[in-house]
Amino acid sequence: MLPLLTRIDHVGIACRDLDAAIGRYEATFGLQVVSLEVNEEQGVREAMLAVGRAQLAAAAAGAQLAAVAAGDLRPGYVQLLEPLGPDTPVGRFLARRGEGLHHVGYGVQDIGQALDAIGVRGVRLLDKRPRHGSLGASIAFLHPADLGGVLTELVQAADPA
Amino acid sequence: MLPLLTRIDHVGIACRDLDAAIGRYEATFGLQVVSLEVNEEQGVREAMLAVGRAQLAAAAAGAQLAAVAAGDLRPGYVQLLEPLGPDTPVGRFLARRGEGLHHVGYGVQDIGQALDAIGVRGVRLLDKRPRHGSLGASIAFLHPADLGGVLTELVQAADPA
Repeated sequence: MLPLLTRIDHVGIACRDLDAAIGRYEATFGLQVVSLEVNEEQGVREAMLAVGRAQLAAAAAGAQLAAVAAGDLRPGYVQLLEPLGPDTPVGRFLARRGEGLHHVGYGVQDIGQALDAIGVRGVRLLDKRPRHGSLGASIAFLHPADLGGVLTELVQAADPA
Repeated sequence: MLPLLTRIDHVGIACRDLDAAIGRYEATFGLQVVSLEVNEEQGVREAMLAVGRAQLAAAAAGAQLAAVAAGDLRPGYVQLLEPLGPDTPVGRFLARRGEGLHHVGYGVQDIGQALDAIGVRGVRLLDKRPRHGSLGASIAFLHPADLGGVLTELVQAADPA
């Protein structure tokens, strides 16, 4: 059985200028954008930049790893978030705290089961049901006040295999 | 050739009470502490909790993945940080911002080479030479002002294989 959290899926970073932020991560670390999306529901324009694991995934496919392992081979991502306006969650975050780390997302195998499990452990769910996230994932946020000030996201990848 | 950043190694989370924070992550997510250390140089008492990949590493070992892949199979970690006193970096962070996300750490294969490469790209190095980090790793921090407000750490694991 996989553990509840299967990986660090991404770190979400709030920025004022998405293009400038992308340029910084490309130039400094050689990261590449794999997805550029507007999420109206969440009020953000966002980019996903893959960290590392492309080669690992290819090697694992060659070695025909068991499904339990392959489901965990999604790369990690840097997720850069620019608000669509000041009256959005990320817009208010920027006004209050400035640019920087906004949230962390962890992979889960089944987001419905994960929310059921966590909801009975005294952590408030900001999303009682999964929403649409980056790269076709199903996501849900947990309340930062119940997790030591850390806005925490659960991510079920679109295609875990 | 591996990319410069091979993985999201950990998220660093500042907390006032390490034992309470550990209890919260154990109870909510079933994470387990794999290391508990005091780092006098950095002024913190800290815990590393592994996210996910223990089973993956075992599967990969069985499949005899190429070294290039195996070096990337370290789990991700939640790193909980309690300051040793108010006049420490994490103590000042807590006074200024409260509990929450403090930094992100990325894996690198060779930290000396990584610092050389990044230093010439206009990002200031808070550590010109690697220091001792959790689990025997060699680490160095990059200046958050050059990375959109994100305190960023590079981590060369003690035993990358």
